[in-house]
Amino acid sequence: MGLSSNRVEDLSGHACNDSFELPISNNEPLEVHRVCLPPHKTTLQKLRQRLLEVFFPDDPLHKFKNQTCLTKFLLGLQFFFPVFEWGPQYNLKLLRADIISGFTIASLAIPQGISYAKLANLPPIVGLYSSFVPPLIYSVLGSSRHLAVGPVSIASLVMGTMLSEVVSYTEEPLLYLQLAFTATLFAGLFQASLGFFRLGFIIDFLSKATLVGFMAGAAVIVSMQQLKGLLGMIHFTSKMQIIPVLSSVFQHKDEWSWQTIVMGVCFLAFLLTTRQISTRNPKFFWLSAASPLASVILSTLIVALLKSKAHGIQTIGHLSKGLNPPSMNMLYLSGPYLPLAIKTGIVSGILALTEGIAVGRTFAALKNYQVDGNKEMMAIGLMNMAGCCSSCYVTTGSFSRSAVNYNAGAQTVVSNIIMATAVLITLLFLMPLFYYTPIVILATIIITAVIGLIDFQAAFRLWKVDKLDFMACICSFFGVLFISVPLGLAIAVGVSVFKILLHVTRPNTGVLGNIPGTQVYQNLHRYRTAVRIPSFLILAVEAPIYFANSTYLQERVLRWIREEEERIVANKETEIKCVIIDMTAVSSIDSSGIDTICELRRTLDKRSLKLVLANPGGNVMEKLHESDALESFGLNGIYLTVSEAVADISSFWKKEPELPI
Amino acid sequence: MGLSSNRVEDLSGHACNDSFELPISNNEPLEVHRVCLPPHKTTLQKLRQRLLEVFFPDDPLHKFKNQTCLTKFLLGLQFFFPVFEWGPQYNLKLLRADIISGFTIASLAIPQGISYAKLANLPPIVGLYSSFVPPLIYSVLGSSRHLAVGPVSIASLVMGTMLSEVVSYTEEPLLYLQLAFTATLFAGLFQASLGFFRLGFIIDFLSKATLVGFMAGAAVIVSMQQLKGLLGMIHFTSKMQIIPVLSSVFQHKDEWSWQTIVMGVCFLAFLLTTRQISTRNPKFFWLSAASPLASVILSTLIVALLKSKAHGIQTIGHLSKGLNPPSMNMLYLSGPYLPLAIKTGIVSGILALTEGIAVGRTFAALKNYQVDGNKEMMAIGLMNMAGCCSSCYVTTGSFSRSAVNYNAGAQTVVSNIIMATAVLITLLFLMPLFYYTPIVILATIIITAVIGLIDFQAAFRLWKVDKLDFMACICSFFGVLFISVPLGLAIAVGVSVFKILLHVTRPNTGVLGNIPGTQVYQNLHRYRTAVRIPSFLILAVEAPIYFANSTYLQERVLRWIREEEERIVANKETEIKCVIIDMTAVSSIDSSGIDTICELRRTLDKRSLKLVLANPGGNVMEKLHESDALESFGLNGIYLTVSEAVADISSFWKKEPELPI
Repeated sequence: MGLSSNRVEDLSGHACNDSFELPISNNEPLEVHRVCLPPHKTTLQKLRQRLLEVFFPDDPLHKFKNQTCLTKFLLGLQFFFPVFEWGPQYNLKLLRADIISGFTIASLAIPQGISYAKLANLPPIVGLYSSFVPPLIYSVLGSSRHLAVGPVSIASLVMGTMLSEVVSYTEEPLLYLQLAFTATLFAGLFQASLGFFRLGFIIDFLSKATLVGFMAGAAVIVSMQQLKGLLGMIHFTSKMQIIPVLSSVFQHKDEWSWQTIVMGVCFLAFLLTTRQISTRNPKFFWLSAASPLASVILSTLIVALLKSKAHGIQTIGHLSKGLNPPSMNMLYLSGPYLPLAIKTGIVSGILALTEGIAVGRTFAALKNYQVDGNKEMMAIGLMNMAGCCSSCYVTTGSFSRSAVNYNAGAQTVVSNIIMATAVLITLLFLMPLFYYTPIVILATIIITAVIGLIDFQAAFRLWKVDKLDFMACICSFFGVLFISVPLGLAIAVGVSVFKILLHVTRPNTGVLGNIPGTQVYQNLHRYRTAVRIPSFLILAVEAPIYFANSTYLQERVLRWIREEEERIVANKETEIKCVIIDMTAVSSIDSSGIDTICELRRTLDKRSLKLVLANPGGNVMEKLHESDALESFGLNGIYLTVSEAVADISSFWKKEPELPI
Repeated sequence: MGLSSNRVEDLSGHACNDSFELPISNNEPLEVHRVCLPPHKTTLQKLRQRLLEVFFPDDPLHKFKNQTCLTKFLLGLQFFFPVFEWGPQYNLKLLRADIISGFTIASLAIPQGISYAKLANLPPIVGLYSSFVPPLIYSVLGSSRHLAVGPVSIASLVMGTMLSEVVSYTEEPLLYLQLAFTATLFAGLFQASLGFFRLGFIIDFLSKATLVGFMAGAAVIVSMQQLKGLLGMIHFTSKMQIIPVLSSVFQHKDEWSWQTIVMGVCFLAFLLTTRQISTRNPKFFWLSAASPLASVILSTLIVALLKSKAHGIQTIGHLSKGLNPPSMNMLYLSGPYLPLAIKTGIVSGILALTEGIAVGRTFAALKNYQVDGNKEMMAIGLMNMAGCCSSCYVTTGSFSRSAVNYNAGAQTVVSNIIMATAVLITLLFLMPLFYYTPIVILATIIITAVIGLIDFQAAFRLWKVDKLDFMACICSFFGVLFISVPLGLAIAVGVSVFKILLHVTRPNTGVLGNIPGTQVYQNLHRYRTAVRIPSFLILAVEAPIYFANSTYLQERVLRWIREEEERIVANKETEIKCVIIDMTAVSSIDSSGIDTICELRRTLDKRSLKLVLANPGGNVMEKLHESDALESFGLNGIYLTVSEAVADISSFWKKEPELPI
């Protein structure tokens, strides 16, 4: 219809109309630029690019480009075994730092290992085994320099909860142990395959909001479970929810042992105080690092000295000396409990992974190096697969020990080797020393560790920043507390995904106006200085147009038009002749979206309104082109910017005021 | 650091530096505009707005604003009973058109009603009952003028499949009938409550792509089932999948009746030919509309005349005269099959709803009126709830009959009343005429109807426009064909949702360049004329930043920087000093996203790179403000447009070349 159609042919052939009066203040000649299609690609090329972007967004092989074969081999070796990367530069200065940090985390790892094994309802010694083999394997494969590897509270708790809901660890200890090792195998397999198939992004779906709620819920559950040790009780429910636990505690009031309670409360106060001091002043990190071992030594001494008078205090008792026994023959690979082992493995595996990756990334960011998520997953997975054959249960990078490791000045994963050596010495020579260690002390260590998982500040921040995130957090907290650990987690992930879908289903739309003196169009509601352009209604759609929102968007656009028309009638302004949709934020469109745009155009045509698109993205242009919708719009219906659309269409109206649109 | 900080205080106080040389060609004075926060709102206001947008996007009550009580009452009456809206304007001319179209759809509805009831494994008469009560109720409540209400193939098929997989309709016909009515009740309840709670957007998740595949799969399954009638077989499998059906057909080869086959093939050819003619030339719509009734009459006559010689042809047999008997007492509201009835009701209900709403919207768009989805859901739901008490099974707006209705010139829902009257006459007086109607003719009618559901063109278009949509289509087709109807549907919805999540997890990013002579920045890859600005790396992020993509985006931005630095080293260009992220398409951000932005900023700071955001949306600004990240950026880190950011930062560098960033 004469609308400067020369821009269709050639980008440089501008349609200049000097006489045109722009609605904006400057008097430049009107230039109309062509909207380009992205360079043509075959389906195969597109698929390849898409797959690369999904699975190799970090382009892990970029180092290998343009290298000789030898360099490629060396780089490959470094790629799969990061030890070859830092190994050659390792020196005595680094070793000294690593020895100090290694022994520091060992002093924390030994009591925590024993305690966490109890949390998973496993024999205490399994916790020590798990602090020996996995750190050694990680030190060869892992790419984080500060991760302290071993059992962690969340994974221990989940494993303990899920297994003991079906199999009693007191009545069938061997089966329980077999299932624990098998779950570890599946956790490792799952973790390694996530890494191998580069599906690491799956753990991103456990959002921080979800984890804050989940950890807090788990911490409460774990602390409740420790009431057994803290009160010195013998009979206790195998359930995890808050109500059965509390009723169990008060049903067996007669079992409460005052000696245990006194000791527990004292040491709990001691541990919490040192923790508080370390949190307030990071210089005193060693205080919280050393206090668990100090508590164990002190309480063991007390019990050993008072052994005749402290009958009420339960102790760990005999622990056999010696290295990790092989446990390959204990794997439970067929039978009715296999699905349980698989499910437990996957849930505890994904949680272990989330903690390990998050911790690794946190400290990498502090020291400005990169941790490759997928490689870490393979490392953690392989370490667990090796662990399940050597009497270890699920391990990963622990947040608390890694923080101590970092603060103690660890430089490389050698600190893990030092820690493993310390555990080795313990396993070989020091096991009899734990004979008199009271169980209540393990309970206090666990409580101190898990209380740190309750992050009120993070929850408050979620509330402040994003109410829906806060809801996901609360859902996962109460889900874990009152339903069950895996179901609570599933609910929380569901809420997070629902949040995404809600945003896609009900995207933002708004009316834009021109900011005087510029070619910028912004939301009228937000920018009070922005002004409406008479005869135009300029709408912004702020989401991809998909099947899930196409109906909504169509109705919403029609509502905006209706409201604008009502406003115009009320204020006696010029009526709308053209609707411009700013597609800048429409990053993608599917076939339903295209149908919607075309139908909207037809509907508006019937009402003598012109529909014009401004700045459709590359994807959108491509789809419009492929569906032949582009032709029906004509390039006169698509502009590069809103301001060009406004200028060009107004100039056309000026030139041919009689013509209908 | 001196970067025109006056813009922080006042929007109108521009920082003008005439001496500045813009990287773009014109010589306007440099103006830097402030990025506004959206107007402040309390949490409650935000929640209210959000809820209104989710549940009342169409602002259904806008008509009621500023009206007197009486008008409000009348509008309310019209709102709930659309009959009051068109009733007063109804006249003889409209009635004449409705009578013609009413009788036309009746001639189609009667044979289809009987056939679809057979498809649902119900007595044929239930199909006629279902074509009588529901249309009457819809004509009072419904807001579409062209919808022809009655049983439809998809809902009948789904009900037949799901119920007969558990309960045999030959062995326990009463229980089967009870379950069908109960499923209808739950379908109605589900539909009405979706409408009542304004959750209509749930059906949007059945994307067109999914439905194309689903319908094609269902059509194949239904056609296979009709082999029983078409071959005149007596024994047939109760399974629905393609393989058991085919094996059943060939196992009982001895049951094939040549008379039935000859008759079936002839009438199938006749029906398909008339359908083809009508499709090619919409003027002859009456041909396909009248041919089913013609076939029924003709075949009944043939069988009646040849009754002594055509023993092999099974006929409908005796049908009792009379109106819909009440069926309230047949509802199966407790017992082991209740979950089955509920599941069947929900699945068939949602499919019926999808068809009804889509058909209503299609014809409303053609005649340029609006159909309120939520109100339609309530109408269809109430109609089914009434139906289940009067011996009807699931009904909705049928696509084929509505098209005939539209083509026959229907003006209002009165055509449904006319159709119901015709069905009433049939029920009262004409039932004995169906005694000799051969069952094979019902099979041919069903096949003709469902073959139209296979839409090759739509599938081809999906392939052309969106490969992932095509995959959803194929998944739902094969899912229905080889697994089961509800599972196939679930898989297809899963694929559609996965598509959304994939886009969120791996959003597009790209490097922008300036289009010479403008202030426009576009993707360098797409616009070959766009040029890089030395010292700047301008990145566009084309999706909301969420927990699900924040890790990816961080890594991807760092990779863009690395690649740009490599390119710069190779070409010996000026090194990057500033990274600008164009946030125009970032329509939303959550707490993980904010953390990512802040962490990215810290990481780049350590590498002496400045990070600047351009044009963050209202939501994003609000979140940045609430999380105090805005302060850490300072307003010097956030610009209204990329071009202002480039101009302002370059001018700052020119003025103070010595200062580090």
